[in-house]
Amino acid sequence: MAVASIQQVLDGKVAVGETVTVQGWVRTRRDSKAGLSFINLSDGSGFAPIQIVAPALLANYESEVKRLSAGCAVRATGAVAASEGQGQAYELQAETIEVVGWVEDPETYPIQPKAHSLEFLREVAHLRPRTNLFGAVSRIRHCMAQAIHRFFHEQGFYWINTPIISTSDAEGAGQMFRISTLDMMNLPRTAKGEVDFSKDFFGKEAFLTVSGQLNVEAYCLALSKVYTFGPTFRAENSHTTRHLAEFWMIEPEIAFADLNDDAALAEAFLKYIFKAVLDERMDDLTFLAERVEKTAISKLEAFINAPFERIEYGDAITLLQKSGQKFDYPVEWGLDLQTEHERWLTEQHVGRPVVVANYPEHIKAFYMRLNDDGRTVAAMDVLAPGIGEIIGGSQREERLDVLDARMRQFGLDPAHYQWYRDFRRYGSVPHAGFGLGFERLVVYVCGLQNIRDAIPYPRAPGLATF
Amino acid sequence: MAVASIQQVLDGKVAVGETVTVQGWVRTRRDSKAGLSFINLSDGSGFAPIQIVAPALLANYESEVKRLSAGCAVRATGAVAASEGQGQAYELQAETIEVVGWVEDPETYPIQPKAHSLEFLREVAHLRPRTNLFGAVSRIRHCMAQAIHRFFHEQGFYWINTPIISTSDAEGAGQMFRISTLDMMNLPRTAKGEVDFSKDFFGKEAFLTVSGQLNVEAYCLALSKVYTFGPTFRAENSHTTRHLAEFWMIEPEIAFADLNDDAALAEAFLKYIFKAVLDERMDDLTFLAERVEKTAISKLEAFINAPFERIEYGDAITLLQKSGQKFDYPVEWGLDLQTEHERWLTEQHVGRPVVVANYPEHIKAFYMRLNDDGRTVAAMDVLAPGIGEIIGGSQREERLDVLDARMRQFGLDPAHYQWYRDFRRYGSVPHAGFGLGFERLVVYVCGLQNIRDAIPYPRAPGLATF
Repeated sequence: MAVASIQQVLDGKVAVGETVTVQGWVRTRRDSKAGLSFINLSDGSGFAPIQIVAPALLANYESEVKRLSAGCAVRATGAVAASEGQGQAYELQAETIEVVGWVEDPETYPIQPKAHSLEFLREVAHLRPRTNLFGAVSRIRHCMAQAIHRFFHEQGFYWINTPIISTSDAEGAGQMFRISTLDMMNLPRTAKGEVDFSKDFFGKEAFLTVSGQLNVEAYCLALSKVYTFGPTFRAENSHTTRHLAEFWMIEPEIAFADLNDDAALAEAFLKYIFKAVLDERMDDLTFLAERVEKTAISKLEAFINAPFERIEYGDAITLLQKSGQKFDYPVEWGLDLQTEHERWLTEQHVGRPVVVANYPEHIKAFYMRLNDDGRTVAAMDVLAPGIGEIIGGSQREERLDVLDARMRQFGLDPAHYQWYRDFRRYGSVPHAGFGLGFERLVVYVCGLQNIRDAIPYPRAPGLATF
Repeated sequence: MAVASIQQVLDGKVAVGETVTVQGWVRTRRDSKAGLSFINLSDGSGFAPIQIVAPALLANYESEVKRLSAGCAVRATGAVAASEGQGQAYELQAETIEVVGWVEDPETYPIQPKAHSLEFLREVAHLRPRTNLFGAVSRIRHCMAQAIHRFFHEQGFYWINTPIISTSDAEGAGQMFRISTLDMMNLPRTAKGEVDFSKDFFGKEAFLTVSGQLNVEAYCLALSKVYTFGPTFRAENSHTTRHLAEFWMIEPEIAFADLNDDAALAEAFLKYIFKAVLDERMDDLTFLAERVEKTAISKLEAFINAPFERIEYGDAITLLQKSGQKFDYPVEWGLDLQTEHERWLTEQHVGRPVVVANYPEHIKAFYMRLNDDGRTVAAMDVLAPGIGEIIGGSQREERLDVLDARMRQFGLDPAHYQWYRDFRRYGSVPHAGFGLGFERLVVYVCGLQNIRDAIPYPRAPGLATF
């Protein structure tokens, strides 16, 4: 007997009248007075469940079918039929229904066929993939990840998996997690009484990476177009709804390129990803637009149709100062933009995504290229309506003498960055790149409020990723 | 002026006679007696460099072009011409050559146009992407990663990024790295004098994951077909050429599936990946076949054309015992197979890939499904000529009572696995999956000996991933 996914049947890929087997988990069961039951069955292959029509003449109708409850696993075989009801075009007229797995104590099964609060679902994270919402988020997350790899591949980029365990402790991008195999109860000590990390697994202090960017430059300056897509870690004690200790970052890096090339890449990238979600996951987006965020679809459509605006940081400051808007944080040349400023720029002033370029040098990282004015660097942020900053990037400082001066200015010792300096000694070229958080992009697309709802396992029993 | 990648020009995507700009790094320069120079330029877009013909009448011919050495960055503009020499079909007749980046002290530049030992290149890992070998390995690694995502996507799987930071310390798959933000010089203590992990970042002990499998089952039992592709970590102090502390694993998991389905998926998967490399990276494979491993191409061709053999573990033991072969390790029912046994089976006995199935229960993990004989579990290993075991998988134990008994047998407390037990309480179904190391697959495809040559950064200054 041929097995098909429920999505295949609902897509009409099995002819009406043909016998097929579908397998999945019961969402609901409804018994009609006419002596038959309707079972909504989901296998996660798409948003919609399929309706199984179970006639009373099934051998196990009274003994099993009428006991089916949410979460039971079922294998149903029967003919595909045009559906007379609303909703789906096809249904399955069951000839056999095999119960593969029951639900122990249906009354206490956490995933009932009703709306659950997101707080509750975070507590049963191992079961939340079975809900409509987290099924939709999972499929959209997958769609976005695939589109990310496909976009770069089509553009001639190579994927590089930069190291996650790092012994470089001075990248300055945030608080780091230490990794160690030392026995915490019996730490080896040096003669001076300090912890003797030469006895640790890597022979020195080791941490989880905060960014793959510096590493990936080695590949950019050999393969020209590269990107990372992998996990990064920040040990910042900010338990907000916007921060994760563990998150995936996307960091493309392009050679023979300046800040304009970087901004153009960022625009093409975001539009490609959002278009893929619109093309491939309209089922899930429709649900999100109905239940989570009304603009889930229209927001993406507007995004891919709008050309990005470009504004100089200095002009952005002037615009904000003249806006007549009251802000909580001060607006002044030399200060970083806060989310309220970013959102005014992109939502109120421009009404579409904005690239803000050329920030004051002292508020940006040492590796960003110093502009000729000596007081700004070739940095950019992409701001989008509804979220604010979504991408940060820069042209990198390719001049060794300027890089060394910038490192010293930031209190970094160039001798610790000899390998990074080498890229400027040997065939240095203008290059640029940007970085963005994958989960933040998922939050934006799905219209979620809490970034813990964008990751597969926020607080599973025995696990922690928050 | 249109910019093209070198691969585009060599592929004939720019018409002969058309003017184009290419950008990259000099591999070699040869001055002819006729008063012109030939520069081989690489941008990493493919294996082959392009030949730039630089006539003496270029304004900077004497002052710059004749000083170009390996590693210099160059932007060359000129007309595409049919090449008269051997090798490439096209070359570039330079009208201008702009030197973008010089090499400081060409005499000491580590990447000279000659063969370097792999040991030496591991010491200059940040520059080794500029060699023929590591360019080829990087492009093949990318091709394989893309093919992995594409294969699963085409088959209806969803990618799940399972947690990397784990507070579950009993998975039993290997030694774990601890992660912590506690101050090692001033560890907080409990009243009993033990380290007080309630003060640590996650409020309890946390580790780097050794596998995403247990977590991904939650998604398998909701979305039916899922896979992970992400980093995992083992703190085993085996500094061999085959082990990494940090490596990427691929772990698909399928619902309503048994060990036969699992083996069929493994076969389809490997063949798809290898076919993608043959289809897309013949340039790099040809180089590897010439310089690294003679069978780099024929090995993959044989692999994708051979149907996998299937052998029961018990039969494999009998075959090995009757082989007349002398082995270093004993062969006996109940003992695990060693690499020498695996290689005899796949290379000598069958001559193609083999799936060995149904291993003794006491040498396999607690979550593998107990067979009806009570002494074997539904586990499988895929063995391939030239490497031995390349994939390990199993059908998972879906019966709660059997799972609990197995956990107790292995000294694990079922109470610690309440979330994992839930999958067996609520709509449990037969399911199966496998896992394999990405770098090990890269090593196999590229014909490398040391797994440190399959990762981007083995021992970069200031970095460690070994």
